[in-house]
Amino acid sequence: MQTTQIRLAAYPEGEPKDSDFETVTVDLPELQEGEVLLKARYLSLDPYMRGRMSRARSYAAPLEIGDVVLGQTVCEVVESTVDNRRPGDLVLAFTGWQTHAVVDARHVRRLDPEAAPPSTALGVLGMPGFTAYAGLLEIGRPAEGETVVVAAAAGPVGSAVGQIAKVKGARAVGIAGGEEKVRLLTDELGFDVALDHRSPTFADDLKAATPDGVDVYFENVAGPVGEAVLRRMNTYGRVPVCGLVANYNATSAPDSALGFPGFMNLVLTRSLTVRGFIQDEFVPTHTEDFRREMTQWVADGSVRYLEDVVDGLENAVEAFRGLLSGRNVGKLLVRLPD
Amino acid sequence: MQTTQIRLAAYPEGEPKDSDFETVTVDLPELQEGEVLLKARYLSLDPYMRGRMSRARSYAAPLEIGDVVLGQTVCEVVESTVDNRRPGDLVLAFTGWQTHAVVDARHVRRLDPEAAPPSTALGVLGMPGFTAYAGLLEIGRPAEGETVVVAAAAGPVGSAVGQIAKVKGARAVGIAGGEEKVRLLTDELGFDVALDHRSPTFADDLKAATPDGVDVYFENVAGPVGEAVLRRMNTYGRVPVCGLVANYNATSAPDSALGFPGFMNLVLTRSLTVRGFIQDEFVPTHTEDFRREMTQWVADGSVRYLEDVVDGLENAVEAFRGLLSGRNVGKLLVRLPD
Repeated sequence: MQTTQIRLAAYPEGEPKDSDFETVTVDLPELQEGEVLLKARYLSLDPYMRGRMSRARSYAAPLEIGDVVLGQTVCEVVESTVDNRRPGDLVLAFTGWQTHAVVDARHVRRLDPEAAPPSTALGVLGMPGFTAYAGLLEIGRPAEGETVVVAAAAGPVGSAVGQIAKVKGARAVGIAGGEEKVRLLTDELGFDVALDHRSPTFADDLKAATPDGVDVYFENVAGPVGEAVLRRMNTYGRVPVCGLVANYNATSAPDSALGFPGFMNLVLTRSLTVRGFIQDEFVPTHTEDFRREMTQWVADGSVRYLEDVVDGLENAVEAFRGLLSGRNVGKLLVRLPD
Repeated sequence: MQTTQIRLAAYPEGEPKDSDFETVTVDLPELQEGEVLLKARYLSLDPYMRGRMSRARSYAAPLEIGDVVLGQTVCEVVESTVDNRRPGDLVLAFTGWQTHAVVDARHVRRLDPEAAPPSTALGVLGMPGFTAYAGLLEIGRPAEGETVVVAAAAGPVGSAVGQIAKVKGARAVGIAGGEEKVRLLTDELGFDVALDHRSPTFADDLKAATPDGVDVYFENVAGPVGEAVLRRMNTYGRVPVCGLVANYNATSAPDSALGFPGFMNLVLTRSLTVRGFIQDEFVPTHTEDFRREMTQWVADGSVRYLEDVVDGLENAVEAFRGLLSGRNVGKLLVRLPD
């Protein structure tokens, strides 16, 4: 049995190039007792992966050159040595950018395709949805009537943030790039207002959309968009810092009109709370509530989700570039043939 | 009856100049029912006053040109129309930079000179001590064995921060400017380590002083000192942002080697909590505990305090300049003649 893998060939400088990766086909090891043989059905592509392709100090060790690019996957069990995982079962695994893998059966979680489409385990009911849920509710703590702003709002985290804010009775203002996404935010996802950050009138649009200022800014993107929102923060505003995708491909310090001293002056004079987080922190405390509430909200239509499905392992690198430059709409998945 | 006042004559550009102020002597209004006539004994000089001498948006309205410079004072009651304030009583008031004032008796708090020296109501047992107490305990939340770093550590807020950290079982690292202050921090105030930020080896000294990183950085100063400490923060570190005195006289955006994007990357990858605050926020919730605990700690010697007393209203402006450039040691007070 073989697997085709995408491995890191070089640490990318700036935007990842095709030559930063190599595709190889190798034999899988023999299945041992306690293991399962998996065939990937969906690969998850997420912005955090860019951080692992760098040696810069981060919250997790970088990939080594030659490693398979990491990531969660939805897989089908092909062969099993354990009773509670049968061939044909769909499972959530962490097998990365490859077609097949042999893993410890204890490291996969069985999915119930009757309860929800299996791909949602990588999106709204998985890590991105959990990130939105825990970061917004634990750090952002939106109160009824408050204004919540999120950028990359058409992405899997941002779209969940806005919709959970609505469930909590807050006003949701979404920011995205391009008319199509902006229309989706209000027409499909129930945001109160959606803004196109590419518009030349963005700063004025933001002001008009937040007449009472901003109470919670869920920071996904950084850059000029983030700075424009931070300037609108109210006293006692909260800023969960979840991602800084505009900076991920940067090869030198990005420009900042606000500047660090200007930012700290906002923090001080408006008594802001700025809190970085990685979703792992909240897994022990918030997983049970998340599964119960989010499953319910998806079932009753309070939280909707969008998926952007790309077919074929050979298109993963190009899709990943698109993710980092904002070309996808909804959760980006690579689907592998049955 | 007359009062001599220092009024704001112009909004200072950069460091306040003598010509930004004017000293005038005016008649006081007739004492009305419910009022007291006060004679100031101590004026408090605090960095926040610089913020009120600017039209930049802040947490409080700026002084208007012609206003008496604001601030807390310890005063003696000269004449009273109410039963519970008698001539000779010492009170805490908010009469600003002037020798006398007529105020509503309900706006002054009687001080007990037997319980503590009256000047401490402006320092360790007053606003600066409360700022340290509430900011450190509510936002910093130092645990036993953690490392707490504070700059401007010889000032009234910083010295209390370090000593309260010690009471809580944390390690206290103080940063100050000049050998005299550094010696005071360890010899008089019980800091575990004290560092001179003017030393050419400061960055290395800081590293050596924080071998396990920094868990709480109580931000008083900003500038290169603040940035050096922020780079040493541990995962889940807390940064109460209380003041940015290095920036207060700035006439253009201060330099920042770290930069805003670099800072946000620290916040994200180390899951930092950065929280600006003004002590007023915690007055309703923390005043009672503060009075009880801090009075006890001062009485039993766990928290010591230093005062820097300047004589005469005519020296207030020069003393204030010194405060903003780090020339004082301990709580800066202007003493007026009996």
